[in-house]
Amino acid sequence: MTAIDNVWFQYKEALNQVEGEIKKGLDSEVPLINEVAQYTLVSGGKRIRPLLLIISANMGNAIDERYLVLGSVVEFIHTATLLHDDVIDNAKTRRGQPAARSRYGNHASILVGDFLYTRAVSRVVSMENVEMNYLLATTCSKMTEGETWQLTHTSDFNLSEEQYIKIIAYKTASLISASCKLGGVMASASSEEKEALYSFGYHLGIAFQIADDTLDYIADKNRFGKGLGQDIKEGKMTLPLIHLLAHCQKQEKASLIELIQSGKPQKDLSSILKLMELYGSIAQAQKKATLFVKKAKEKLQIFPNSNHKAALEIVADYVVSRDY
Amino acid sequence: MTAIDNVWFQYKEALNQVEGEIKKGLDSEVPLINEVAQYTLVSGGKRIRPLLLIISANMGNAIDERYLVLGSVVEFIHTATLLHDDVIDNAKTRRGQPAARSRYGNHASILVGDFLYTRAVSRVVSMENVEMNYLLATTCSKMTEGETWQLTHTSDFNLSEEQYIKIIAYKTASLISASCKLGGVMASASSEEKEALYSFGYHLGIAFQIADDTLDYIADKNRFGKGLGQDIKEGKMTLPLIHLLAHCQKQEKASLIELIQSGKPQKDLSSILKLMELYGSIAQAQKKATLFVKKAKEKLQIFPNSNHKAALEIVADYVVSRDY
Repeated sequence: MTAIDNVWFQYKEALNQVEGEIKKGLDSEVPLINEVAQYTLVSGGKRIRPLLLIISANMGNAIDERYLVLGSVVEFIHTATLLHDDVIDNAKTRRGQPAARSRYGNHASILVGDFLYTRAVSRVVSMENVEMNYLLATTCSKMTEGETWQLTHTSDFNLSEEQYIKIIAYKTASLISASCKLGGVMASASSEEKEALYSFGYHLGIAFQIADDTLDYIADKNRFGKGLGQDIKEGKMTLPLIHLLAHCQKQEKASLIELIQSGKPQKDLSSILKLMELYGSIAQAQKKATLFVKKAKEKLQIFPNSNHKAALEIVADYVVSRDY
Repeated sequence: MTAIDNVWFQYKEALNQVEGEIKKGLDSEVPLINEVAQYTLVSGGKRIRPLLLIISANMGNAIDERYLVLGSVVEFIHTATLLHDDVIDNAKTRRGQPAARSRYGNHASILVGDFLYTRAVSRVVSMENVEMNYLLATTCSKMTEGETWQLTHTSDFNLSEEQYIKIIAYKTASLISASCKLGGVMASASSEEKEALYSFGYHLGIAFQIADDTLDYIADKNRFGKGLGQDIKEGKMTLPLIHLLAHCQKQEKASLIELIQSGKPQKDLSSILKLMELYGSIAQAQKKATLFVKKAKEKLQIFPNSNHKAALEIVADYVVSRDY
């Protein structure tokens, strides 16, 4: 059993209870909502956010038993963004299956995304904890801002690495860091501990997105669940491409831009990959992701060694080592 | 000055402060969000929900000064649903102007809708009032469920009037009733008073939507801000059509269904309107809306007479008397 499989096994019972909470939340009077939500929620998502929340909560001593409900909340929010993102990206597949929008239409995907978000909010507010309410509301604002920012910079061939990091910090790292911190809140962690968990999740979230964006170029096609080169096709500026554009020769940059603007750059993905190899763009992105994982793990130094701390470190390593 | 103009005038100062709160809320770091949100928010919306909240709050004695912030919250939520609805309905115009999606695209409309909703939640949770948090979260769930329900019943030629009322109760009346009740919450109204305000808003909301759905057939074209017959074009089953299908002859029903399924029923809108006149479908819908307004006003009986109570009654009458 690999280290990450061990972690899944270690928290299996709690994760199963989160699954139960997820199912309980899909109790709309409108059958289509439950169907679309279930289709998207039970389609092989890795449940990384609930897992991080569970482990973070277990680092503390006095865990509020409702923390498993929060596991479903962060997964609902994540799934809401997937439903909307797939509409925005015109995605045909998700995790190797037809995307919800391919099966149920854009209309249902937008509305069920809205529903999952409102259901998440209902569940959190019923817990009557101001800190959690505020954390999740702010997180959701940031996620939307990050997505919109990214949209604004579609085919912006001068997007800097700093701007890219800020975008993914908002769109991806915000919910991952919130998940970790929520675990701390539910375990009555100290302010310092909660901030450490948040910062761990923040750096991990950035590493996670860089790894994801790199996989879009080089993943194991059979396991990735969607075609390679989707990002460049949509003019989405991610780290490997940003690095390449910043380091290749003027003429190469011009050709690349022309290729992207043609609308079908993924047809010539192999030549783009060759250039990325020449300039070390993939390796550089992977290195950056690893650096963020290292920073993430440093944030855990304030916690005494334990199985739980080790589990968080394993999840952090897993995020940048997966090949699909 | 008409009675409704008088009401607008009476609460002008509070409404202006709500406008200020709306502007304050559009402070995203992402310029596109502020632009799209502003475009949609400042496009001639009637601010019925903030107005109802303001009047309801003024019926009480001890008004929490933050009630004007809540005025912006209900308008944010309303605008979020408009942005998403326009994407879902492929709407080209809204209030006589190009819809946000026509100007900024579906992507921006979806994301800015999400943003406005998250910003509304942030503002409410910062007020640390469990009752309000829960009321608004439940309201937003219902709105999404109502919209999805409606989608499920697209071109359902057997939809009953009861089902239709339930759909519009969820999609429209929920936020209007919540706006009235929120006013009561902010004025420390008694449970009985809050329930009366909620019920007033509920019946008014249903009347509002029936009136809106009727206007889609018979509005003053020049002032309506969008083409007539949009609902029937989209296979949206609203009261005039439900009534007509339930009362016309078998052969007429078959022809009507064929016409709707052709995808261009609004080209033959005049013949549909003639049938509606023959069977009294428009008159019947208007009568139903008036009945709901009457019920709404009855709910106010527990309040002593005052300018504010009179203002609520005027708004209720206005809702079914407007011709655009």
